[in-house]
Amino acid sequence: MNVEYINPFIEASQSVIMMMTGVKPSLGKVYIKNSFFPSENIAVIVGLTGKIRGQVIISFSENSALMIASAMMGGMPLTELDEISKSAISELANMIMGNTATLLAGRNIGIDITPPSLVMGEKLVITPTNMQTISIPLILNGDNTIEIDVSLEDKE
Amino acid sequence: MNVEYINPFIEASQSVIMMMTGVKPSLGKVYIKNSFFPSENIAVIVGLTGKIRGQVIISFSENSALMIASAMMGGMPLTELDEISKSAISELANMIMGNTATLLAGRNIGIDITPPSLVMGEKLVITPTNMQTISIPLILNGDNTIEIDVSLEDKE
Repeated sequence: MNVEYINPFIEASQSVIMMMTGVKPSLGKVYIKNSFFPSENIAVIVGLTGKIRGQVIISFSENSALMIASAMMGGMPLTELDEISKSAISELANMIMGNTATLLAGRNIGIDITPPSLVMGEKLVITPTNMQTISIPLILNGDNTIEIDVSLEDKE
Repeated sequence: MNVEYINPFIEASQSVIMMMTGVKPSLGKVYIKNSFFPSENIAVIVGLTGKIRGQVIISFSENSALMIASAMMGGMPLTELDEISKSAISELANMIMGNTATLLAGRNIGIDITPPSLVMGEKLVITPTNMQTISIPLILNGDNTIEIDVSLEDKE
């Protein structure tokens, strides 16, 4: 995978989360995931087509999801993820990917994105097929994590 | 959602499954899913962009997944879904969606598809955001089911 594709994902994630929560998440160590992976139990999946094809999975620890949904809903305290907060999380993913698409377009890499789908479950494992996955960990307020897994198709 | 979009999904699913297994699945009652939905515990998700945007989730009962993977691997008996058979199931979804794209193109509806991702977990719930979902149940050999859930964005 071309590493120059990854920076727009990082930049967009940080700036959208900063805009929504007022806190800029710090960037953990970006790494290549070689094996099939279990993600956090709350994930939003957004597809990519165009010059680069793949799926992006944004997964949240429950605390991060609650913190972000609460901030997006004007600071209303939340103790569980209800329908409105799930919808806020999906919208966050949509904004991150829309922003990423704009940044990529500025580098002449045209992509199109699908609407987001929220995936929840226990022992969740998402396995992109024939794609390499780069994982971008973001840390919000100490120990709330958000992981952006970018799976892009390997071109022959 | 425009119902004319749905027939190519049905036609492609039936013909690809027929080609891969030698058995034409019968079509159950197509219906609109109004609520957030739990799907079977093995699902493949493929994104759509272009003239119609959304996500298609093809979910399998464990028996259907094993039966199809076994047929795609030359009839080798399978008792559990290993990595090769998961990859066969993903490839089936990819072929169904590729075939659907071709049929839609023949109707001047140009779409692009993402590579497939396999989603497994317990108590799996996949919630497309701001999309209407049409569910296409297919029945293979009596009681093996495959469900094709087509979620497309509502245009304003």
